[in-house]
Amino acid sequence: MSVAAVEVAHACAAQPAPARVALLGTGTVGGAVLARLASWRGSPLGDRVTLVHVANSRACAGDRAGLAAADALRRLALTPQGSSLDAVDSALRGDGARVVIDATASEAVAERHAHWLAQGIHVATACKIGQGTSLSRWRAIRAASLAGDARYGDSSTVGAGLPLLRSLRELREGGDRIHAIAGVLSGSLAWLFNQYDGMRPFSTLVRQARDAGYTEPDPRDDLSGEDVRRKLLILARTAGVELEASDVDVASLVPPELAILSKDALDAALPALDAPLRERFQSAYKRGEKLRFIARLQDGRASVGLESLPSDHPLAGGAGTDNRVAIWSDRYATQPLVIQGPGAGADVTAAGLLDDVLRFLRSR
Amino acid sequence: MSVAAVEVAHACAAQPAPARVALLGTGTVGGAVLARLASWRGSPLGDRVTLVHVANSRACAGDRAGLAAADALRRLALTPQGSSLDAVDSALRGDGARVVIDATASEAVAERHAHWLAQGIHVATACKIGQGTSLSRWRAIRAASLAGDARYGDSSTVGAGLPLLRSLRELREGGDRIHAIAGVLSGSLAWLFNQYDGMRPFSTLVRQARDAGYTEPDPRDDLSGEDVRRKLLILARTAGVELEASDVDVASLVPPELAILSKDALDAALPALDAPLRERFQSAYKRGEKLRFIARLQDGRASVGLESLPSDHPLAGGAGTDNRVAIWSDRYATQPLVIQGPGAGADVTAAGLLDDVLRFLRSR
Ligand SMILES: NC(=O)c1ccc[n+]([C@@H]2O[C@H](COP(=O)([O-])OP(=O)(O)OC[C@H]3O[C@@H](n4cnc5c(N)ncnc54)[C@H](OP(=O)(O)O)[C@@H]3O)[C@@H](O)[C@H]2O)c1
Ligand SMILES: NC(=O)c1ccc[n+]([C@@H]2O[C@H](COP(=O)([O-])OP(=O)(O)OC[C@H]3O[C@@H](n4cnc5c(N)ncnc54)[C@H](OP(=O)(O)O)[C@@H]3O)[C@@H](O)[C@H]2O)c1
Repeated sequence: MSVAAVEVAHACAAQPAPARVALLGTGTVGGAVLARLASWRGSPLGDRVTLVHVANSRACAGDRAGLAAADALRRLALTPQGSSLDAVDSALRGDGARVVIDATASEAVAERHAHWLAQGIHVATACKIGQGTSLSRWRAIRAASLAGDARYGDSSTVGAGLPLLRSLRELREGGDRIHAIAGVLSGSLAWLFNQYDGMRPFSTLVRQARDAGYTEPDPRDDLSGEDVRRKLLILARTAGVELEASDVDVASLVPPELAILSKDALDAALPALDAPLRERFQSAYKRGEKLRFIARLQDGRASVGLESLPSDHPLAGGAGTDNRVAIWSDRYATQPLVIQGPGAGADVTAAGLLDDVLRFLRSR
Repeated sequence: MSVAAVEVAHACAAQPAPARVALLGTGTVGGAVLARLASWRGSPLGDRVTLVHVANSRACAGDRAGLAAADALRRLALTPQGSSLDAVDSALRGDGARVVIDATASEAVAERHAHWLAQGIHVATACKIGQGTSLSRWRAIRAASLAGDARYGDSSTVGAGLPLLRSLRELREGGDRIHAIAGVLSGSLAWLFNQYDGMRPFSTLVRQARDAGYTEPDPRDDLSGEDVRRKLLILARTAGVELEASDVDVASLVPPELAILSKDALDAALPALDAPLRERFQSAYKRGEKLRFIARLQDGRASVGLESLPSDHPLAGGAGTDNRVAIWSDRYATQPLVIQGPGAGADVTAAGLLDDVLRFLRSR
């Protein structure tokens, strides 16, 4: 072997440079990403990624040599820099794989996903706005990730890291056509209806779920079915059914008088939920049935809403914040593929984001 | 761009040469692989693979330009060539990715898996002998696939293509430690105990399951728990618990008088199963419970056998040949990840094998 060939062989065998990561969002999920990165320190996983930028809506902090994840929030509090998304591109400049982790619920951030992909920057996102709102934005993201080498990690958008979107894609890549999908897609609504026994007021449970971080920052995003609409749109589009947001029939649980309130006025008004839900619970209970908030895609039609199901119905099972999704296809024509597990919570969501990042690195 | 650069760009954009595939086994599963390959003809999937060799234990046929899958069985019947595994290596010689699909239940074929991997030949297998028998063979396969670029596709060995082993590996690659696994791992035993109502003789159901292709060629491989032992070994080893076959505690359903019979004498003697199972069924029924054949891995201990479970127990659900597996880990510490779906049948098994082949091609 020539000296040059030996050097090339050596360079190939050497560890690749760690991926440079920018984390956007330091709330429930972003905080758990930082905790998980901190726990990787000193392990082989820790050598694979370098956190070079962290931001919330108020401030950002960066260090080209790497920020200690455990220290990032303090750095962010001390820094005088305002937050700007333009800073992300320059913070990531340099060698090795580049990754944005989106742990925000921000339109402005989602609007940049396609831009980053087009620059060759991988995007791992817990935020559903990129893929789960307008079809044109979904298509832009898809086109950008197909055109180049950068990949889009969306495991945490539906099912908080459960192998759902991956499994749908693998079925389709093997030539399978998806016939139908039905499931409990909201960890918070699953938790609420697994807990709700018609005795304690429903609003009390909503407050508990919010405080435990199961709901979206504004619990109406869950109760209205809007969060599930986005998840069903992502599932449907991934299954090859390119629906517009308005194509999904959503039956909201939020009465009009709650819908119009400001976020601050909401908490006091939550008990408006209680009477109508107690009534629905009691009529289900009399038939030996259970209330479940179900999303369905079938024959190209999509719907979201509360259903009363026999207690041995396959979608009535699960506990805690479990999501549970059934997929029918050419291959699974009679008995569906069913995937069940925790579908909300900061830890599994953060783990799903970082799994996506590790997958980017494996596929290079 | 220079002319050379344009040519390089062009060559990169061109479709890679189709993978050259050798199919071993033309029985229940191998026949379904051929049918699936035939259905791909003229589609983009069909352009990705060329079947160059097909063999059963009696004969083989090959064509470097490609055999029409629909025609392969006729070619095999007409050919005067005997079957030899050495023919596989020479049949695959040539450009492009090379793949062996193992749809046999043959020791001799399993013994070659590591050899093929070491030659750079990908192996997709429905046969559990390679990974599910001695630890040394499992280690040899693992070492060969880690050392080179050839990959080992085992989706169809456990769960007939369900996203089970993939999900376990992805959890571990993300730093997750597996705490426990429990499940119904045999499609045929699932079917038998989903059907069995204590009225029809159990032996009648066994014959039905065998004729439908749900059981292994010799149904004792299922009833003895030996097939489940292999599957649990594959799951455990994939989860990082390197057990020897003898470490699994297996409670066989086959009474000693059946175990010693030749395959030919078996059918007439099957009713020996009926009385003991009717008794177990009745005692479960009295407690409102259901019989399920369960594999468990917990605290490094592994066991396989019939259990009587409350009818609302998470592992009592499912229908048909559904497998159902629960995985607990650091991340899924309270509520497990559960994956359920058809776990036997020629179609899903063949689809799982070809999914593995397509994954080899994507990862190149
Ligand atoms: N919680 C869950 O169980 C769960 C599960 C799956 C998916 N998700 C999704 O994960 C995302 C985050 O949820 P969360 O519960 O962590 O929300 P959260 O606690 O409200 O945190 C949101 C974070 O985003 C930051 N942010 C907003 N706009 C930003 C911008 N332009 N640039 C940088 N940072 C910005 C916020 O900054 P400030 O701190 O300055 O307000 C905050 O730190 C959401 O899209 C949610 O749907 C959540
Ligand atoms: N059936 C299922 O639902 C299912 C599901 C998952 C996994 N599997 C696994 O898939 C494998 C095949 O099962 P099956 O039901 O298709 O069995 P099968 O119908 O008995 O077919 C076995 C095939 O292997 C061939 N064979 C044996 N030794 C060979 C050798 N040395 N070289 C080439 N071919 C050889 C046999 O040849 P002859 O035709 O000459 O006998 C036969 O064609 C088994 O390992 C089984 O455990 C089956």
